[in-house]
Amino acid sequence: MSAHISQQFNAELDNVRNQVMTMGGLVETHVQDACTALEDGNVQLAERIVEEDFKVNALEVAIDEQCINIIARRQPTAGDLRLVMMIVKTITDLERIGDEAEKVAKMALALEKAEGEDNKQQYIEIRHLGDHVAKMLHDALDAFARMDVEAAIKAAAEDEKIDQEYDAITRQLITRMMEDPRSIQRGLNVLWAARALERIGDHAKNISEYVIYLVKGKDVRHVTFEQMKKEALESR
Amino acid sequence: MSAHISQQFNAELDNVRNQVMTMGGLVETHVQDACTALEDGNVQLAERIVEEDFKVNALEVAIDEQCINIIARRQPTAGDLRLVMMIVKTITDLERIGDEAEKVAKMALALEKAEGEDNKQQYIEIRHLGDHVAKMLHDALDAFARMDVEAAIKAAAEDEKIDQEYDAITRQLITRMMEDPRSIQRGLNVLWAARALERIGDHAKNISEYVIYLVKGKDVRHVTFEQMKKEALESR
Repeated sequence: MSAHISQQFNAELDNVRNQVMTMGGLVETHVQDACTALEDGNVQLAERIVEEDFKVNALEVAIDEQCINIIARRQPTAGDLRLVMMIVKTITDLERIGDEAEKVAKMALALEKAEGEDNKQQYIEIRHLGDHVAKMLHDALDAFARMDVEAAIKAAAEDEKIDQEYDAITRQLITRMMEDPRSIQRGLNVLWAARALERIGDHAKNISEYVIYLVKGKDVRHVTFEQMKKEALESR
Repeated sequence: MSAHISQQFNAELDNVRNQVMTMGGLVETHVQDACTALEDGNVQLAERIVEEDFKVNALEVAIDEQCINIIARRQPTAGDLRLVMMIVKTITDLERIGDEAEKVAKMALALEKAEGEDNKQQYIEIRHLGDHVAKMLHDALDAFARMDVEAAIKAAAEDEKIDQEYDAITRQLITRMMEDPRSIQRGLNVLWAARALERIGDHAKNISEYVIYLVKGKDVRHVTFEQMKKEALESR
């Protein structure tokens, strides 16, 4: 490849990576805002997320198209090709995180409608889970931006803690529902929201694993976290 | 491209497509068996699905690797490149369908432990939803195998009906839980299983949409079904 073409290729790749970061930033905002909307019963904020989800989808389609064009025109070699393929996978997960944030926003709208003043303390649980998930997503995107394996491992490790937090919330909500069957419908709405947040954790873990996979050149997607950590850290 | 190389390329593509069908067949069996395990309380069947999920994961990794190799070595042109990219996306959805089937199998194990003889009629609901989802997945894979746009549209259209069925099951289960708070934990398990089936419908819809996208060359992933149907059927 001549220096000129190589320069163009790098510029195109940088452009795509920047767009992924834009998409990641938008999705991150949606996750945070959806949690805030749920905590504060902020209907306007929730509605804006639902309205804006098309932007996330449009970014996915645009980036996808650019990746295919880059591969077709530039015919990148193994390493660069893997980067482009990894970007295609990352934006699929980002798009689905956007969908989950939209679900949380819709739950905020549903809960606001059905809401009295009782059970406020359950929202604090969701807030903690929401903050945790938003932080994990932020760290995963940061690891992507810097292609930082150790940051990616740290981000991926949070998923287990998030699952435990989610289980604790589930147990508490079930106890409440058993004490007061009238709270069942509302309790289920909170559970769906918690489950959406837990799923966002899964997608953030996927993104972290793509970073590790790309940098380390090993497929770490279907091994346990302990194995992943071992593989990623060996040969340092 | 010389005729010889082109022949090799086609043989490699056929090989990858056959492996996707193998993966699809395995995942389809897991979905059906997970539903049977749930209906009949068949612990052995449920355990086998949980044990076998690694096969689904291994197929995803192997097919993914082959796709990257094909792109790197054969540098396919636009149409063939899109086919390879579409296969990479399809196997991601198949792998996640496998995960959801594993969840249903785990629910079957959990329900079997907690089970008495009551509430048997709820399983009939799950059975119907399970059969519906398995049929939709089968049709989506069939549309993939034949690259048949109209079959893909028909398969994708089932997702809305599956969502409605899922909503009906949710309402019935909530009514039961309100009548008998002791059934809450069990009711939630059934709900998680129903939700996993509903998600399998989402993934089957994704696969159908990739077929339409590939054949029609338009991005129909983020339009409504009505628009999709219109776009896919126009210019026939």
